[in-house]
Amino acid sequence: MFITFEGIDGSGKTTQIKLISDFIKNLKYGIILVREPGSTPVSEKIREILLDKENAMAPETEAYLYAASRAELVKKVIKPALDKGNIVICDRFLDSSLVYQGIARGLGLQAVYQLNTMALGDLKPDVTILLDLDPMVAKARLKKLDRLESEQLDFYRKVREGYLYLADREPERIKVVDAAQGVQQVFEDVLSIIKNKMGRRLL
Amino acid sequence: MFITFEGIDGSGKTTQIKLISDFIKNLKYGIILVREPGSTPVSEKIREILLDKENAMAPETEAYLYAASRAELVKKVIKPALDKGNIVICDRFLDSSLVYQGIARGLGLQAVYQLNTMALGDLKPDVTILLDLDPMVAKARLKKLDRLESEQLDFYRKVREGYLYLADREPERIKVVDAAQGVQQVFEDVLSIIKNKMGRRLL
Repeated sequence: MFITFEGIDGSGKTTQIKLISDFIKNLKYGIILVREPGSTPVSEKIREILLDKENAMAPETEAYLYAASRAELVKKVIKPALDKGNIVICDRFLDSSLVYQGIARGLGLQAVYQLNTMALGDLKPDVTILLDLDPMVAKARLKKLDRLESEQLDFYRKVREGYLYLADREPERIKVVDAAQGVQQVFEDVLSIIKNKMGRRLL
Repeated sequence: MFITFEGIDGSGKTTQIKLISDFIKNLKYGIILVREPGSTPVSEKIREILLDKENAMAPETEAYLYAASRAELVKKVIKPALDKGNIVICDRFLDSSLVYQGIARGLGLQAVYQLNTMALGDLKPDVTILLDLDPMVAKARLKKLDRLESEQLDFYRKVREGYLYLADREPERIKVVDAAQGVQQVFEDVLSIIKNKMGRRLL
């Protein structure tokens, strides 16, 4: 079972991943938590290049670096963990590249998808939780944390619309959760989606 | 005019690029020398990851990192320099990815070519000088330099064959020079190829 979480910064991905992984651990399932970009030695070095604001780079370069980090993570961690029967939860995955580089940066959905085929092989998330939130609300939440300054609200509106567009195209895989609700209510929604997907396997 | 040099380590690319660039400079042409991976701030950081032998990475990851470095170099340096009428000489380019990752590492020529389309756009070298050399000879040359230890001769044989295969497929662009000759003779061959390609523009 391969579960990914998507959503703009401030939508609560980290909190929800912590809650759901604690829940699954209590059921004695093997669980592996990873994040993108990162979670392998090489991918963490790629992450440093991507997140250093000094490195103003072309959107194409960005797309390749995310794909490089992903290829390494899939080969070295995600596939082996799934093969051993673990549940893998990933904080951001392919959909982030499709939305951020493909839609918001304008490289095109199809081009970014094509570019990622070598990184993915036949791997696809069984379910993707999209924590949907108005960028204005996310901004207010993050203000305390002094983040979300270098990017404009307009950019995040495009990202949100991009995510909702993908969810429309793949409703079976991508499940939209209203992230403006309280933490506990969001968690109940997330849990119900995952229980539905896992069916008898989990319960 | 965009000229690339290809060949295994020890085939004399650096020496020949120095000779040809001195020759062109004397003719008062604007000339930009770059190398792959590298030659932009971000690409040099990617180079560090690629060349650090501690970083044992999947061939797919390697292919993406070379493409990332290339995308940045094309957008930030090569295209702007060509647009201004300069001659650009690049030490390794797409053919290295095709041969090292596509053929020698087994990812497939077509897959690696496809993966690079976003990095290249419509850019293609006007001429590629392939310095062809028997890996045994290259090994003897490099022995003094204490390199070529971590890779096997077999691997370099595949690389050499891969290069010659590409040259067979694109004889108009890729010109093979016998790099076992003396430095001066190799230079004369290289110069004659470039003069032919530039025609009246250079002379």
